[in-house]
Amino acid sequence: MRCSFHALISRSQFLLCRPYCAISTRRLLHSPSMTMQLADEDSLRKALADKQSSVDLQGKAVRQLKASGASKPDIDAAVQALKALKLEKASIESQLKSSLSGAAGGRDAFRQAVANTLERRLFYIPSFKIYGGVTGLYDYGPPGCAIKANVLAFWRQHFVLEENMLEIDCPCVTPEAVLRASGHVEKFTDLMVKDVKTGTCYRADHLLKDYCNEKIEKDLTMSSEKVAELKHVLAVLDDLSADQLGAKIKEYGITAPDTKNPLSDPYPFNLMFQTSIGPSGLSPGFLRPETAQGIFVNFKDLYYYNGNKLPFAAAQIGQAFRNEISPRQGLLRVREFTLAEIEHFVDPQNKAHPKFSEVANLEFLMLPRKEQVSGQSAKRFRLGEAVSRGTVNNETLGYFVGRVFLFLTLLGIDKDRLRFRQHLENEMAHYAEDCWDAEIESSYGWIECVGIADRSAYDLRAHSEKSGAPLVAQEKFSEPREVEKLVITPVKKELGLAFKGNQKMVAEALEAMNEDIAMKMKADLESKGEVEFQICSLGRSVTIKRNMVSISKEKKKEHQRVFTPSVIEPSFGIGRIIYCLYEHSFYTRPSKAGDEQLNVFRFPPLVAPIKCTVFPLVQNEQYEEVAKFISKSLTASGISHKIDITGTSIGKRYARTDELGVPFAITVDSTSSVTVRERDSKDQIRVSAEKVASVVKEVSDGQKTWADILQIYPIHSSGSAE
Amino acid sequence: MRCSFHALISRSQFLLCRPYCAISTRRLLHSPSMTMQLADEDSLRKALADKQSSVDLQGKAVRQLKASGASKPDIDAAVQALKALKLEKASIESQLKSSLSGAAGGRDAFRQAVANTLERRLFYIPSFKIYGGVTGLYDYGPPGCAIKANVLAFWRQHFVLEENMLEIDCPCVTPEAVLRASGHVEKFTDLMVKDVKTGTCYRADHLLKDYCNEKIEKDLTMSSEKVAELKHVLAVLDDLSADQLGAKIKEYGITAPDTKNPLSDPYPFNLMFQTSIGPSGLSPGFLRPETAQGIFVNFKDLYYYNGNKLPFAAAQIGQAFRNEISPRQGLLRVREFTLAEIEHFVDPQNKAHPKFSEVANLEFLMLPRKEQVSGQSAKRFRLGEAVSRGTVNNETLGYFVGRVFLFLTLLGIDKDRLRFRQHLENEMAHYAEDCWDAEIESSYGWIECVGIADRSAYDLRAHSEKSGAPLVAQEKFSEPREVEKLVITPVKKELGLAFKGNQKMVAEALEAMNEDIAMKMKADLESKGEVEFQICSLGRSVTIKRNMVSISKEKKKEHQRVFTPSVIEPSFGIGRIIYCLYEHSFYTRPSKAGDEQLNVFRFPPLVAPIKCTVFPLVQNEQYEEVAKFISKSLTASGISHKIDITGTSIGKRYARTDELGVPFAITVDSTSSVTVRERDSKDQIRVSAEKVASVVKEVSDGQKTWADILQIYPIHSSGSAE
Repeated sequence: MRCSFHALISRSQFLLCRPYCAISTRRLLHSPSMTMQLADEDSLRKALADKQSSVDLQGKAVRQLKASGASKPDIDAAVQALKALKLEKASIESQLKSSLSGAAGGRDAFRQAVANTLERRLFYIPSFKIYGGVTGLYDYGPPGCAIKANVLAFWRQHFVLEENMLEIDCPCVTPEAVLRASGHVEKFTDLMVKDVKTGTCYRADHLLKDYCNEKIEKDLTMSSEKVAELKHVLAVLDDLSADQLGAKIKEYGITAPDTKNPLSDPYPFNLMFQTSIGPSGLSPGFLRPETAQGIFVNFKDLYYYNGNKLPFAAAQIGQAFRNEISPRQGLLRVREFTLAEIEHFVDPQNKAHPKFSEVANLEFLMLPRKEQVSGQSAKRFRLGEAVSRGTVNNETLGYFVGRVFLFLTLLGIDKDRLRFRQHLENEMAHYAEDCWDAEIESSYGWIECVGIADRSAYDLRAHSEKSGAPLVAQEKFSEPREVEKLVITPVKKELGLAFKGNQKMVAEALEAMNEDIAMKMKADLESKGEVEFQICSLGRSVTIKRNMVSISKEKKKEHQRVFTPSVIEPSFGIGRIIYCLYEHSFYTRPSKAGDEQLNVFRFPPLVAPIKCTVFPLVQNEQYEEVAKFISKSLTASGISHKIDITGTSIGKRYARTDELGVPFAITVDSTSSVTVRERDSKDQIRVSAEKVASVVKEVSDGQKTWADILQIYPIHSSGSAE
Repeated sequence: MRCSFHALISRSQFLLCRPYCAISTRRLLHSPSMTMQLADEDSLRKALADKQSSVDLQGKAVRQLKASGASKPDIDAAVQALKALKLEKASIESQLKSSLSGAAGGRDAFRQAVANTLERRLFYIPSFKIYGGVTGLYDYGPPGCAIKANVLAFWRQHFVLEENMLEIDCPCVTPEAVLRASGHVEKFTDLMVKDVKTGTCYRADHLLKDYCNEKIEKDLTMSSEKVAELKHVLAVLDDLSADQLGAKIKEYGITAPDTKNPLSDPYPFNLMFQTSIGPSGLSPGFLRPETAQGIFVNFKDLYYYNGNKLPFAAAQIGQAFRNEISPRQGLLRVREFTLAEIEHFVDPQNKAHPKFSEVANLEFLMLPRKEQVSGQSAKRFRLGEAVSRGTVNNETLGYFVGRVFLFLTLLGIDKDRLRFRQHLENEMAHYAEDCWDAEIESSYGWIECVGIADRSAYDLRAHSEKSGAPLVAQEKFSEPREVEKLVITPVKKELGLAFKGNQKMVAEALEAMNEDIAMKMKADLESKGEVEFQICSLGRSVTIKRNMVSISKEKKKEHQRVFTPSVIEPSFGIGRIIYCLYEHSFYTRPSKAGDEQLNVFRFPPLVAPIKCTVFPLVQNEQYEEVAKFISKSLTASGISHKIDITGTSIGKRYARTDELGVPFAITVDSTSSVTVRERDSKDQIRVSAEKVASVVKEVSDGQKTWADILQIYPIHSSGSAE
């Protein structure tokens, strides 16, 4: 076991066994709209090639007519035909161009509109801007920070409180031993190339990807074989080894983008930020790349805290860090981000979930492995069926898929642009049982925002082995059970004679055999008298003879079963979810005068950074008093709000606060009752000044919906406040 | 300005200008109880010395009697007297010993009792324990993590929401330029010594402190001069330079504690964790030592977000990191911790606060500079008076002192073990106007938990200067004002003749003179014709003659005033506050049988990690149904709770949950109504099963107190549940 540790994990498998590793191009290709576009593109490319040959043929015909001294009318007719063909070709060319860039162009424009609003209203700020900034680091400005706090508070309510999870909080600074055991020190890498003259670093796969995309977009006359080849490269990009990437870069003659200098061969760069703990310089440490390891190393204490009972879940919210080679894609690919992770520990023999029935009837878009391989797009499934058919591996995994669906849609993610995509076999780590990503469609394509993986016993075993602390659970039997036990007894004397100083290592290796291997050895020894046996700790095989070991099965009474629990891990990239929420919430609508488009974020009250505004309709002392009274009641109820007594026009105020996604506006237009306006419907109701704070609180806390409120306070048609 | 930047900040001044830098011994000496103890100690040492001379004299007398052949009765009498004197000496010796260790011993035992409970119930866990742990890193286990979340939620309510602060969230990874501007790269250091043979590192001041304390405690016959000297060293420990510390270490012959090897001279070690941003290795970065800098660098955007109006406050909650040389004092001195910081930006000409009247009548313990210097202890002051008398520099600073007092006492900090200590002149950074620390008394002495400083314009100026981005505010005048302006015009031709290549630097230095210096130069030039002038950028002085510069005052119309705002910074060490809260909340009480002491944490419902437990009185299906119904209503209301249907005895359940500080226990003892027991009073009331969740919610949210609840539901004397 020890020596083959991690050997099966390829680079990309390791990276893909946790979320936020790569926004894979392959996944982009699975988008339904993208698929349609692809069909168009293929036929247009073919039409263009056909038309080009027609043009060539006709050109030849014209030249022949001229050479053969044909009549002028004949030549003119042929020239006219050539011109017509050229026009048709130009038309196809422009269709192909717009088909290639059109969708992307629309997405880019939309993204830019959202980004402008987000940056202008300080939802985010490029960090350390006055010092030129640092790529991949962003601050949450006031509204962004409030949204983040709301998302995390709701996450705690929806997961930690609802499931009675054990939430813990571990440091970001982590000693090397922990991340060596988890495999991050060795394997948490991306492939990098350097400009051989300037030393500038690039991600090797980015350069290859850019090359392929640009070639496909710009070179319209490329053969369809070549197009297919480049698209295949894009599809398998994540799976290419360093050598394969290097070979492609050489084959295509890709050079450094800024200087056109040659590039080095690709080599792995570890993505963890390194530091040193304490003053000696002798204790290397890293900033954690995920929060999960802090939970695994505490398994023993948490199991004890839970009364030595399974299943239970531990959770952690905190910062994680990845020193990306060259971050792109704005807020989606950053060097420091907030993760919220759950590790649900469960008996591998029983992955049923008592509350599964509560989510079994949910229906939403899923993209199972089979459908992906056969090129289909995501389809609506009933969760209960997906589990009972075995599409989703087990109830507990299914339960979390359902809970994640509820979490995301309650936050305001559009359920039609949310899908659960199953990992392909070659995408999963070898130890994983099953893995589903919640992917949200954005202007960057489908973005992996939550990973929900059944990681089996891998992590606990790795830390048990490296730390020497047994991270196991016990099942006490109500009465002792008779079990057949494998008994392996090395014969020390014979081993000593045969292997001298290596005797101990051979004996240990024999004792460590699992049942299958041991019973095979027993049979072989009985039939052949000797057998070759690989000893990992010696790095070679030795010959084991019949007299060196006795192998048998004996019946024993056991009072308990000791086992390593499986872990089911839902892992949330909070920043990515928030970014997608921004895109799904953004829309524009014409101003009252119709002369401009105004921006609105339709955040649900639960997430909205500010729940309401309070404006006196006119500047007068009495109204201001009422406004201040309401503001005080809101503060006492814990409702974030903005009071504005500057006397700006109502239209301007609405435009300003719609852009921050403020769901309710309270206009003080009398001293007893006030008008409340809802952001998206522009509905207005009248509520007494005493009650208005509690009405806003109920709907912000999610106790009531706006529709519930309208039952009590009917829409007031002649609202004074618009 | 540029060249004298930071020159005035001594090491300890720089460190002390923000909280959590040192738990100074000097402050421990100010504790009232410590002062009393000191008086005892002094007189006991004197009595011991006197008694020793009496013993010596009497011994001499006995020897003389024997030598002179005196009578046996005379000799016996003298020997008896000597014995009596020796007994008296031994008695004083033991009194002195217990006086020196007694108080500390009691504190240590209490601290150990608290720590045992905290660690056993997983309030905290030494991080990465299964790998041997890392000094100075701790995890918050489930109850600790819940308390931290509650403290932070209340902080947001009490400060951010109540004051409409702009909360932001910046990365931990910070580029060098930012921390160079703030002074941390150069000055954020502790003095370190190394074992010259093994290279082991120690904090120089720790070794000196340990030496002095041990000497005082163990060497009972030390002269009172020597005792006074060592105590003086302890008192000024924080102010010693590297040379002074080194000299003391040599003088006292202090060696490496583990090996007794000689020590190196002390040298500064920077306390920031260093890392590298990006793959090139060319962009050094650090983990932020505080969150404040993230706010300062964003001042311009935040000011704009606030409608270009002052005052406003920005806030940030987040991790901060200090790579301590050798962390001690458990949870109080850690390498990674959560800070909550506020930067309140205000016009330096107007530091009044509109809500000051709301806190003016608060009375609490304060220890102003004057009282400290004259050796007095903290006294109760009315905040309004402290501000109007000028003891506290201004209303805004005073307002935050009052709000911090409310925050801490509402969390459960004992107001009699909380004091606000003003920084001494030599403790404050040169630019600070005034600074008060909220100190909480714990078994480690008085612990600085919140620093509230008026830092004037220092931080914004530093970043303006280094980044080139003007971090200023404007006051627009309603009508233009006539102001007298200083006009300095260097005469280029004359400067060129006199200073050649240095002409530009001389001209710039002249233009940079402030009014006082310029008017003095004008007068001197008029009277003496020439004057010596120090040019920082040249590192020497030059002679300025009358014809080289014209200095005058001119009247000008101005439409606005441009200025750098002052910043008032309340900075909260969340982990320290929580640790002190643990100590203030902990008590023991006898079990019902009286055979053991049970541990209780008296956390207020607001902070308690779990708000209530739900137990069916007996194991029966009906009661379990009611318990599950109540559990569901509690979850829906967002109330963390524990349901226990294991059938453990009620006494054991109470003992277990009192130790977690759970304030309420709901016992299901009928199908319609249930018993609610309050933790500290053991009061029991009866509430209907439908209403009980909302009762617990009201008192957990702070909307009602337990006393309010008792008004509605009277105490039920024959509670079935104890």
